[in-house]
Amino acid sequence: MRNGGKYDGNLGILLGIACVAELDRRGERLPVAIEVAAFADEEGARFQTGLLSSRAMVHGLDPKLLERRDADGITLADAMRAAGLDPARAGEARIDPSTLAAYLEVHIEQGPVLLAEGHALGVVTSIAAGARHAMTVTGEAGHAGTVPMPMRHDALAAAAEMVLAIERRCSAGGSLVGTVGLLEVKDGTGNVIPGQVRFMVDIRAADGDMLAAAQSDVFAELDAIARRRGVRLEGDRTHHVRAVPCTPWIQDAVARAIERATGRSPARRLASGAGHDAMILAEVAPVGMMFVRCGAGGVSHNPAETVSAEDAGLALSALVELVRAFTPLQARSAGE
Amino acid sequence: MRNGGKYDGNLGILLGIACVAELDRRGERLPVAIEVAAFADEEGARFQTGLLSSRAMVHGLDPKLLERRDADGITLADAMRAAGLDPARAGEARIDPSTLAAYLEVHIEQGPVLLAEGHALGVVTSIAAGARHAMTVTGEAGHAGTVPMPMRHDALAAAAEMVLAIERRCSAGGSLVGTVGLLEVKDGTGNVIPGQVRFMVDIRAADGDMLAAAQSDVFAELDAIARRRGVRLEGDRTHHVRAVPCTPWIQDAVARAIERATGRSPARRLASGAGHDAMILAEVAPVGMMFVRCGAGGVSHNPAETVSAEDAGLALSALVELVRAFTPLQARSAGE
Repeated sequence: MRNGGKYDGNLGILLGIACVAELDRRGERLPVAIEVAAFADEEGARFQTGLLSSRAMVHGLDPKLLERRDADGITLADAMRAAGLDPARAGEARIDPSTLAAYLEVHIEQGPVLLAEGHALGVVTSIAAGARHAMTVTGEAGHAGTVPMPMRHDALAAAAEMVLAIERRCSAGGSLVGTVGLLEVKDGTGNVIPGQVRFMVDIRAADGDMLAAAQSDVFAELDAIARRRGVRLEGDRTHHVRAVPCTPWIQDAVARAIERATGRSPARRLASGAGHDAMILAEVAPVGMMFVRCGAGGVSHNPAETVSAEDAGLALSALVELVRAFTPLQARSAGE
Repeated sequence: MRNGGKYDGNLGILLGIACVAELDRRGERLPVAIEVAAFADEEGARFQTGLLSSRAMVHGLDPKLLERRDADGITLADAMRAAGLDPARAGEARIDPSTLAAYLEVHIEQGPVLLAEGHALGVVTSIAAGARHAMTVTGEAGHAGTVPMPMRHDALAAAAEMVLAIERRCSAGGSLVGTVGLLEVKDGTGNVIPGQVRFMVDIRAADGDMLAAAQSDVFAELDAIARRRGVRLEGDRTHHVRAVPCTPWIQDAVARAIERATGRSPARRLASGAGHDAMILAEVAPVGMMFVRCGAGGVSHNPAETVSAEDAGLALSALVELVRAFTPLQARSAGE
C-alpha cells in the first residue's frame, strides 16, 4: 500500500525469521520443517491483484495477471523482472498443499482493540466476512435559494440519512462494522441542491450470517429512506469475501503461547476485520494468526503505524513457544 | 452561468423591449422616459464579479476589476474589447441616481412555487438575505475493518448528522432554506474511515432576523454534534448578503397589474431566494420585481429551464399595465 505503515506484513516476516534464528541459537531441531514465507503484494494496490503471492503458492499464478498494468503502464511481468524475478518461472511458486502441516501468521492488529484493553498480543478467531457496495442516489438538482424545503429531493440529505442508518445498524455490537469511506456529490457547488450522490458502503463481520443480516437490514432501510424522500437508489456489490475461521486447535495453541509469554490469562481473542494471506492458506491447511498491539491509537495503513520493541519481543517469545509446542499438538489433533 | 438556462435574465430584457414596442404600437406616450437595461455578468461566473454591470451603473466600475482574469488567463478588459466595448470608457456607465424614478425587473422565478400553486406570475416581496459558510470536520481516519464502531471518530458520519441538522432547522417554514451543496471527503476511499470532510452551508431567508436566528441555531447544533462525536469543527463565512425588500407601493402596483392580466386575485407574493440586479438598484431607487412561472418542475441554472409562450404573454400584458399605471401611482406615492 502506498504511503502505508512499515509493520503491516513486514513484522510477521521478520518475526518468522527471528523465530528460526532463536531456535537455531538454542540448537533446537523440530520434527517438522519451518518455511518462512514473505508474500509480496498482499494489498494489490499497484496492479489490483490482492493476495497475489499466496494465491500463486496455493493455486499457481494466473498467467493473465502478468500482463496487468499499473497506473504508469508497467506490466506485472516487467515489475517482476525489475525486481530480479523471472515471470516465466512464476508457476514454480506453487507448492503441494499436502506437504503443509499448518500455516501461522503474526500480524500487527491494525486496529485499537488490544491497545485500548492493555493486551500486547491477541488470538485471531477468524478473518471477517465483508461486502462492499457502490451506491448511487439520484434526486433533483435545484437552485439553493429558490426551492422551498418541502419541495426538495436533495440527494445529499438522503445520502446523509443513509450514512447514519448504516452507522446505527452496524453499531449493534460484536465484530460488526460498517463504513462509508467514499462519498461524492456530482457537480457539487455551494449554491445548488445536490442532484446525485455516489457513495461506497463497506460492511464486515466475523461470521457470514451476521454480515448477511446486517446487509439485509441496511439495504431495507436505505430503500425506505429513498422512498420516503422521493429519490432513486441504485447499488452494485463490488466486492465480497466470506469469513475465514482460524482452526480451533491452533487458536487454543496460540492462546496458550500468548499466556505463557505475557504471563496474563486468558489471552484476548478477536476477529480480524482486515484481510490476510491466511485466507488463501486456509483453503488447503489449518491456519492460525496472532495479533501484535498497534501503537499510536491503533492507526494503520499510515506512516504513523507503530509497534513497540517490547511488544515485538513478546510476540517473538510467544511464536517460539507456539512453534516448539506445535508438533505434539498437531499429532494429538490428528489423533482426535 | 455556464450551461445555464436561456430565460434567466434574458426573459426580463426581452419583455422590457417588447413592452416599449407595445406602447409604441399603441402610440402611447408616457410622462416618464423608459430605459431598458440589459445588465451583463449578473452571475459573475467567469470573473467572480457578480452584479458587475448594475454596480457599474450605480457606483461606477472599479478599475481594478478590469485586470481580473478568467480560468484561461483572459482579463475582463480583454473580454470587453473582444465584445466590442472600450474598457477605458467603462466609467461612463455610471448614471445620476436622482434621475431614476424607479427600477422594475421581470425575471423567471427559478423555483417551483408558482408552478406548484398554478400561478403564471408572482409579486416579489424581497430578495432574501443569505450567508454561506465553509466548514471543515476533522475526525480520525482508520481502517474500515478493524476499528470497532464505539471507538470511531468518523468525520463523514459527523458531517452527515450536520447535513440533517441543517435540513431540519431550515425546514421551520416561511422563506427559510438551507442547503449543503458541496461536500468532499478528504482522501476518500472505500475501506478507510473518513478523517476529514469539508462542506459548504448556504442559508437564506426573506428577512435578516430570520436568517440570523437560523444561523445561530444551526451552528449551536453543529457544535453540539462535533462535541458529542469527538470531532473538530471549523467554519468560515465566505459570503453574506443582506435582505433587500421591494418597495411596498411598487409591490402593490405589481400585484394589481398581475391581477388584471391574469384575471386571478389576489396575486401570489413570494420572496426571491436568488440574487438579482435589483439588489444594487435598491440602494438608490424604489424597486419592484415580477416573477414568471418556471416550467419543467421549476428547474433553473440548467438547459432544461423553460417559460411557456402563454406565460411570457401574460407577463408582457402585466408589465405594460404596470408601466402605464406607473406615473400617476408614483405621483400619489410621492405625495403621501
